Amino acid sequence: MTVLGLGAMGSALAGALLAAGRPVTVWNRTPGRADALVAAGVTEAGSVAEAVGASPLVVACLWDHRSVHETLDPVADALAGRTVVNLTNGTPGQGRELGAWAHEHGFALLDGGIMAVPPMIGTPAAFVLYSGPEEAFDVHRAALDAFGESRFVGTDHGMAALYDIALLSAMYGSIMGELHAFAMVRSAGVPAVEFAPLLQRWTTAVGGFHERTAELVDARDYTRDVVSNLGMQAAAYHNLIDAAHEQGVSPELLAPLHALMLRRTAEGHGHEDTVGLIELLLTRR
Amino acid sequence: MTVLGLGAMGSALAGALLAAGRPVTVWNRTPGRADALVAAGVTEAGSVAEAVGASPLVVACLWDHRSVHETLDPVADALAGRTVVNLTNGTPGQGRELGAWAHEHGFALLDGGIMAVPPMIGTPAAFVLYSGPEEAFDVHRAALDAFGESRFVGTDHGMAALYDIALLSAMYGSIMGELHAFAMVRSAGVPAVEFAPLLQRWTTAVGGFHERTAELVDARDYTRDVVSNLGMQAAAYHNLIDAAHEQGVSPELLAPLHALMLRRTAEGHGHEDTVGLIELLLTRR
Ligand SMILES: NC(=O)c1ccc[n+]([C@@H]2O[C@H](COP(=O)([O-])OP(=O)(O)OC[C@H]3O[C@@H](n4cnc5c(N)ncnc54)[C@H](OP(=O)(O)O)[C@@H]3O)[C@@H](O)[C@H]2O)c1
Ligand SMILES: NC(=O)c1ccc[n+]([C@@H]2O[C@H](COP(=O)([O-])OP(=O)(O)OC[C@H]3O[C@@H](n4cnc5c(N)ncnc54)[C@H](OP(=O)(O)O)[C@@H]3O)[C@@H](O)[C@H]2O)c1
Repeated sequence: MTVLGLGAMGSALAGALLAAGRPVTVWNRTPGRADALVAAGVTEAGSVAEAVGASPLVVACLWDHRSVHETLDPVADALAGRTVVNLTNGTPGQGRELGAWAHEHGFALLDGGIMAVPPMIGTPAAFVLYSGPEEAFDVHRAALDAFGESRFVGTDHGMAALYDIALLSAMYGSIMGELHAFAMVRSAGVPAVEFAPLLQRWTTAVGGFHERTAELVDARDYTRDVVSNLGMQAAAYHNLIDAAHEQGVSPELLAPLHALMLRRTAEGHGHEDTVGLIELLLTRR
Repeated sequence: MTVLGLGAMGSALAGALLAAGRPVTVWNRTPGRADALVAAGVTEAGSVAEAVGASPLVVACLWDHRSVHETLDPVADALAGRTVVNLTNGTPGQGRELGAWAHEHGFALLDGGIMAVPPMIGTPAAFVLYSGPEEAFDVHRAALDAFGESRFVGTDHGMAALYDIALLSAMYGSIMGELHAFAMVRSAGVPAVEFAPLLQRWTTAVGGFHERTAELVDARDYTRDVVSNLGMQAAAYHNLIDAAHEQGVSPELLAPLHALMLRRTAEGHGHEDTVGLIELLLTRR
């Protein structure tokens, strides 16, 4: 297999393939980043063309969509008949664009999304999403399994990025909440380490329930078995904003949800589940 | 014990005290909400004064801070020598105001924060935070344990609300992330129930790590053992915003974190941990 890009993630991917006993050829734009891998048995190619020529499976893990084109455009013809797995983070639209471009040049493209940080690569905690031609996935799955659990999420090239970005969005929401929570605690002079176990307990208790949310979202019915209605939550949310002001903490991360709550309540949905706020996010309803 | 307020939460609290074998007197502004509890053995008082006079421990669970004063102000003198436990959601400042007011009138105030929804009251999943005079907490703890685990978080009357609101903020962050994630998925026509198990797996994998965050926050040092630096994340975050636009999903819940990331990166902290964003939230540094 060939790996293009030896940043933190590309290096972890090459290392995992090597650990799985695969022959590995690597290339990186800036030379000198392959030394440790070469010492471990990886072959360093002197050019993208040489790297691409070495394997039927080419994994690209670069900075962004543009860098993928900058790297692959000059060797597009040499890719014919091969499979490129793009593990560079991108949007669904970028995945589709790359898929169409691959089709034009007669090679298979699997667009992927890595749900892990580099140290997790090769462990059971990691999973990687793939979308594109399913035959290509089936052929290369065993090799790709070296990275973590391989999950095929659709033949539409945009699906891996869609799932990836949806998952990352969920994570960044939690990060926003965590940052605000610790800012509140620090503003009161409480050591963060004293608060952390309580937060851990709380996030475990209230985290999840995604299945119930999903049922409401699919049914587009937010009136069933409502435990804490939106109106009550919107009222209590005022206290979150007020408390932030009292403590000298910027409420900027929390404010947009308050605005949505007030809008939805004003539209007459105060007695419904908070999940109904999703309707206000879908602007092309 | 006396419970003032028989909304969803007050009713659950009164029920839990009754289930624990305590004599319970209740009062609600609008009559007729106590019938089921009365049938089960609770005494309904005809006035706040009568309710307050019935017990040394008075639990208030009303709508907001203002309704607590509206209810208790007329009976302030009758409260002397008793303990009031205020479980109405409020800010740290409101908790302190109530504590000072109680002091003036010669009664003990414990301000509390209920970390549960009504159906969880009385189960081990619920916990309730208390702050104020520790002797009052010690005296009444056994009774309060009927609600769930009782946690004393400080003699400063504002601390229960501070912890409560910090925990709620963390939860609302996760809710923001979940809403955005499901909006992305629905925008692509993927059933939410197909995505939910993956989201569950992902939130379990990346959730937590609050202890590491806490260590960085306390040390005010965001340069240690950085796995995914802020600069890289800020770049990938662009894709989250772009993907939302592509899919017709409003990025309003995600946008403020992006702004913080870009500001912090511009200030030269791109190589550091994302946790350093907390410095931008603390406006009274
Ligand atoms: N790290 C993570 O936690 C993580 C997790 C999931 C997904 N990802 C994704 O994985 C991808 C790589 O991330 P990383 O952490 O490995 O980043 P990184 O350590 O910054 O490495 C970036 C890589 O891209 C190369 N590159 C940049 N611009 C290029 C161009 N125009 N042409 C050719 N090569 C170029 C760099 O080569 P030079 O050495 O020449 O600069 C380097 O190999 C990103 O899309 C990222 O979002 C990362
Ligand atoms: N439900 C939850 O999931 C939850 C979780 C944690 C904390 N809490 C907090 O618990 C408190 C009560 O919530 P809830 O769910 O029980 O709300 P609720 O069902 O709406 O009940 C509100 C209660 O407050 C009373 N009230 C409102 N204004 C009043 C006033 N001016 N004077 C006297 N009584 C007044 C109402 O009496 P009437 O019947 O006369 O209107 C009713 O008993 C809130 O602060 C809430 O934030 C709730």
